[in-house]
Amino acid sequence: MNSFGRFFRIHIFGESHGESVGISIDGCPAGLSLQVEDFLADIERRKGGTQKGTTPRQESDLPIFKSGIFNDITTGAPITILFENNNTRSGDYQKQRSVPRPGHADFVAHQKFGGFEDYRGGGHFSGRLTVALVAAGVIAKKLLARVANISVAATILEIGGEKDTEAGLQKAIDAKDSIGGIVECRVNGLPSGLGEPFFDSAESLLSHAVFAIPAVRGVEFGTGFAAAKMFGVEHNDAIADMSGKTITNHAGGIVGGITNGNELVFRIAIKPTSSTPKTQHTLNWETGGMEDFSVKGRHDLCIALRVPVVLEAVTAFVICDLMMAEQKIKRIL
Amino acid sequence: MNSFGRFFRIHIFGESHGESVGISIDGCPAGLSLQVEDFLADIERRKGGTQKGTTPRQESDLPIFKSGIFNDITTGAPITILFENNNTRSGDYQKQRSVPRPGHADFVAHQKFGGFEDYRGGGHFSGRLTVALVAAGVIAKKLLARVANISVAATILEIGGEKDTEAGLQKAIDAKDSIGGIVECRVNGLPSGLGEPFFDSAESLLSHAVFAIPAVRGVEFGTGFAAAKMFGVEHNDAIADMSGKTITNHAGGIVGGITNGNELVFRIAIKPTSSTPKTQHTLNWETGGMEDFSVKGRHDLCIALRVPVVLEAVTAFVICDLMMAEQKIKRIL
Amino acid sequence: MNSFGRFFRIHIFGESHGESVGISIDGCPAGLSLQVEDFLADIERRKGGTQKGTTPRQESDLPIFKSGIFNDITTGAPITILFENNNTRSGDYQKQRSVPRPGHADFVAHQKFGGFEDYRGGGHFSGRLTVALVAAGVIAKKLLARVANISVAATILEIGGEKDTEAGLQKAIDAKDSIGGIVECRVNGLPSGLGEPFFDSAESLLSHAVFAIPAVRGVEFGTGFAAAKMFGVEHNDAIADMSGKTITNHAGGIVGGITNGNELVFRIAIKPTSSTPKTQHTLNWETGGMEDFSVKGRHDLCIALRVPVVLEAVTAFVICDLMMAEQKIKRIL
Amino acid sequence: MNSFGRFFRIHIFGESHGESVGISIDGCPAGLSLQVEDFLADIERRKGGTQKGTTPRQESDLPIFKSGIFNDITTGAPITILFENNNTRSGDYQKQRSVPRPGHADFVAHQKFGGFEDYRGGGHFSGRLTVALVAAGVIAKKLLARVANISVAATILEIGGEKDTEAGLQKAIDAKDSIGGIVECRVNGLPSGLGEPFFDSAESLLSHAVFAIPAVRGVEFGTGFAAAKMFGVEHNDAIADMSGKTITNHAGGIVGGITNGNELVFRIAIKPTSSTPKTQHTLNWETGGMEDFSVKGRHDLCIALRVPVVLEAVTAFVICDLMMAEQKIKRIL
Repeated sequence: MNSFGRFFRIHIFGESHGESVGISIDGCPAGLSLQVEDFLADIERRKGGTQKGTTPRQESDLPIFKSGIFNDITTGAPITILFENNNTRSGDYQKQRSVPRPGHADFVAHQKFGGFEDYRGGGHFSGRLTVALVAAGVIAKKLLARVANISVAATILEIGGEKDTEAGLQKAIDAKDSIGGIVECRVNGLPSGLGEPFFDSAESLLSHAVFAIPAVRGVEFGTGFAAAKMFGVEHNDAIADMSGKTITNHAGGIVGGITNGNELVFRIAIKPTSSTPKTQHTLNWETGGMEDFSVKGRHDLCIALRVPVVLEAVTAFVICDLMMAEQKIKRIL
Repeated sequence: MNSFGRFFRIHIFGESHGESVGISIDGCPAGLSLQVEDFLADIERRKGGTQKGTTPRQESDLPIFKSGIFNDITTGAPITILFENNNTRSGDYQKQRSVPRPGHADFVAHQKFGGFEDYRGGGHFSGRLTVALVAAGVIAKKLLARVANISVAATILEIGGEKDTEAGLQKAIDAKDSIGGIVECRVNGLPSGLGEPFFDSAESLLSHAVFAIPAVRGVEFGTGFAAAKMFGVEHNDAIADMSGKTITNHAGGIVGGITNGNELVFRIAIKPTSSTPKTQHTLNWETGGMEDFSVKGRHDLCIALRVPVVLEAVTAFVICDLMMAEQKIKRIL
Repeated sequence: MNSFGRFFRIHIFGESHGESVGISIDGCPAGLSLQVEDFLADIERRKGGTQKGTTPRQESDLPIFKSGIFNDITTGAPITILFENNNTRSGDYQKQRSVPRPGHADFVAHQKFGGFEDYRGGGHFSGRLTVALVAAGVIAKKLLARVANISVAATILEIGGEKDTEAGLQKAIDAKDSIGGIVECRVNGLPSGLGEPFFDSAESLLSHAVFAIPAVRGVEFGTGFAAAKMFGVEHNDAIADMSGKTITNHAGGIVGGITNGNELVFRIAIKPTSSTPKTQHTLNWETGGMEDFSVKGRHDLCIALRVPVVLEAVTAFVICDLMMAEQKIKRIL
Repeated sequence: MNSFGRFFRIHIFGESHGESVGISIDGCPAGLSLQVEDFLADIERRKGGTQKGTTPRQESDLPIFKSGIFNDITTGAPITILFENNNTRSGDYQKQRSVPRPGHADFVAHQKFGGFEDYRGGGHFSGRLTVALVAAGVIAKKLLARVANISVAATILEIGGEKDTEAGLQKAIDAKDSIGGIVECRVNGLPSGLGEPFFDSAESLLSHAVFAIPAVRGVEFGTGFAAAKMFGVEHNDAIADMSGKTITNHAGGIVGGITNGNELVFRIAIKPTSSTPKTQHTLNWETGGMEDFSVKGRHDLCIALRVPVVLEAVTAFVICDLMMAEQKIKRIL
């Protein structure tokens, strides 16, 4: 479903080329100050418009508050935020409909919704909806900073296998192709004890939310896949003091599904943007045969570049949810 | 919480050294034949008792049906299955309590439950509870096979970085240490269209459930982390025919969070067993100082060896849930 | 929370005098035709503006579709509908804030949200939000009619104890006071088998939703409270044929929490409008003492008059949910 | 589904004549002392065995703790409690199967579960399962008393329309028939602010849970159905002081769906026991014709007599849930 969270509960809606995308947040405490200005920096980070390798599509993307905020302060009622879609060029997509784009949701959306789906620009499956996630993330991060001095920060770790991200990006530019990357998220200031046995481990909730971000192919915590090659005595983090601080942090801050008071560290793998300028050979639904196909329209060479602010957002609202489950965020600030 | 699933809904309970572990399954269709014999092979696989590298602890582990089955057939009411704990040696654990075991949940459980937790053998955090997951998995796999000819199979892919798992295991034996591994799961016969936008993507639900398995450090679908190094035209899977079959399967059977009718392929990383025979230097809660510590009792050198049947189980019940969401499993068989 | 339903899932938001009220519906099947015209009749019924005993406040109240509808047809993605608040006179409410209105949520909202609540016109607790319920109801009723020829109809049964509702209303006018009433809902065409043991009985879900309607004081099914005076042989409905039709319908169409294929019949009690023109003696928060108080502004003498269309709405979306649980509504029409 | 609650979450299972009935409770705080002795009084109240008008069936009905309790104290993990079914006489029911009993769930269970249901003694629909509710209620009431001095008490208000319950019962004995009744529940010590707009009002949650009790036909809060005959100025409760105490309590302690700090008062209507000794004329499934039918076996003349302790139980666990939503019960006691 288009909802997530038990306490800080998010409902997302909208389509790439429809009226709007938006989000309604249920359970945010009353008393948090919120203004349009709080959102601008993260919305700008998501656009990546001035960055080499991101799409030139630009929405004004000002959040429009429709409910839950009164006198610039949250009321405790659901907060609804809309983003209007102004800068859409549906014509780009309509004629492509007979060729479901490889790597995109066109084919599965058609199977699942019987042809009634809004197919323009990926419709409800579009990365456009991440602007709504970012808005929820702004609120979640502000809440975490205010109540518990918790900070969430995500960064690009590598592009196309290169730690020097400019070099990785250049590979794609040279190849006239899109390229993947790895994004890492770190959360500082977390208390121990977050996460619920048995099915709502901190990793379970984080990975659940993370895979809502388009183009994610994997997630790993702490040492992650490298742990599969390690010995026990190498991997175990010795506890150093009564607060639970460990000498190493191979666990990435989570043991037994519960935060242990150390830094939370995890990474996600982002596939190359499905819309590559390269010619592809794929199915034409109308003819039933294969044909050459190349993508028109505005697209990112490396979608990973836009992901950090989105990853911060989903991480922040999962952390809010976990904090509220442990009664570490009051209902009235 | 200790529940998972919207339709094929599982509630798990129990402790390693308490009365029992068990599971109650709500939403299983009426009309599925179920007998103790259906469970024996998978319960045996989980024990791994005859395998090099697994613990000698043996429970008889016969499932005891407490509700939901009448005349050897499911009734549509909740199915409750217990496993009694007979072969426990609590004494092993009680004296160790002052030293929270590195890599285990001892410390976080104490923080979260204020010292009231059942600390014996990991209590509710113990891998012992996976026997209940396996039981749910038996039912889920039987259901999938019956209604849709879907098969779920997990295998060890590597141990300690070695594709030759015996070699990987030998490294641990030689090092007198525990070791990690990678397990892969493949599901055949899946229809396209499973998974829900926006937050209940197939990857979201699978990874959520997968991180309930103790010792999992990461999950990746299809090409996974390797995708982060790839170009778009390499990674995209060209659609080959109207059924959605693709020429390659880098996506691992999921696009846009929705199954696309190809084989589902994903892998998980398992950390080395936390209980290693090696001496570790860690905190003593009573003294507040660090001290040498080594694990007594029965433990696996490589917990990954027991994971395949557990991974099949959680995969199967997630798939049941997704199939029921799409009305592809009737409520009465 | 501001959500309801497992399948046909509703999220409501908004405040009486805020920007808007609205609803987002997740799980509505793809392929249902929806236009503004579908909503007009029920929105008009809810206004009751031309009726003796209802408030003169008039909003244009045209539904604004923000997501989930493409080419006038539902897409399967969340449907979001807004109603703008244009005709508000906040000044009426602001000065009254020191006297929490008896019978209204003013006091409890202040306790619960610490003074951050939007107090204007009841804010999020306002009957204004029922316009969003009505919109969801229009969709639910259209869906039920299309897929299963199910009809939902609610009527005023009595006002102020009078079956002749005009007479009941006249009592209130004569007394210069507000007055209560009883509304009955009947659903025809229901299949047997809807409702889930143990906690999601048809009555449980209906009553849960019904008490979301402001001013409801009670709900009874079939014979309801009269059953408490009856003998068993009087009350039992003899089954008359293999379809489950019963000779009498004291059960109101539900047995053991499950619909039995007969007409669903239930009633709700609506209290008199809390905003009465009469003078009341109650607390002043600022002075801490009691004082005389009388309500200014636009209000209904008998809020029950507006309830039937709202009751139809909540009944219809509960029935949709139950039908979808039984796979009696497909995901694609 | 067979689950209820967001925080104090209950999963019920079992059948009247199966192995057992039971309950698993997820979310109960760690640190609550619990012993078999805590349960005996309420289990005895539910039996009503020595009371005129209740069935002679007697189970020993000792709760068997299967998980979540260690050293007689809750651990924070799910608490599972079983009651074995020893005293069953299935033969009574098997031969009756061709005649679905009027007023019972036999017909609807058969429709819903396709004949796979455990039909013995009502199976999963049996009042037998209320013993599991009572067990959950014991825990919930103990928790409420410990953390907040909240008390929950339900009593018979009338039988067969008689306030003198002995007289009402005598009517049934004289008529050789079963009879209905009304049960009232009062909760003292509740804080204001419990209940969530919009769909999780205190009335919504209470009525949802209340209709899980077999034989309930209606529920009303405060003045209930009488409110439909009242004027506004009569019905409104003037607030008397800053704590929210009102001079009258027509609202029954809930305004706008939120508790207001006054006594919670509500009533439920219980239909006459469906199993009456009187002869009934109803369908025979095998012949397809109508025939005379009379109930054999052990049954209550007035099931309402057993309801108070069950009503206390569901009320108590709903209140726990609401208290936990407001963070008024800590996760560790």
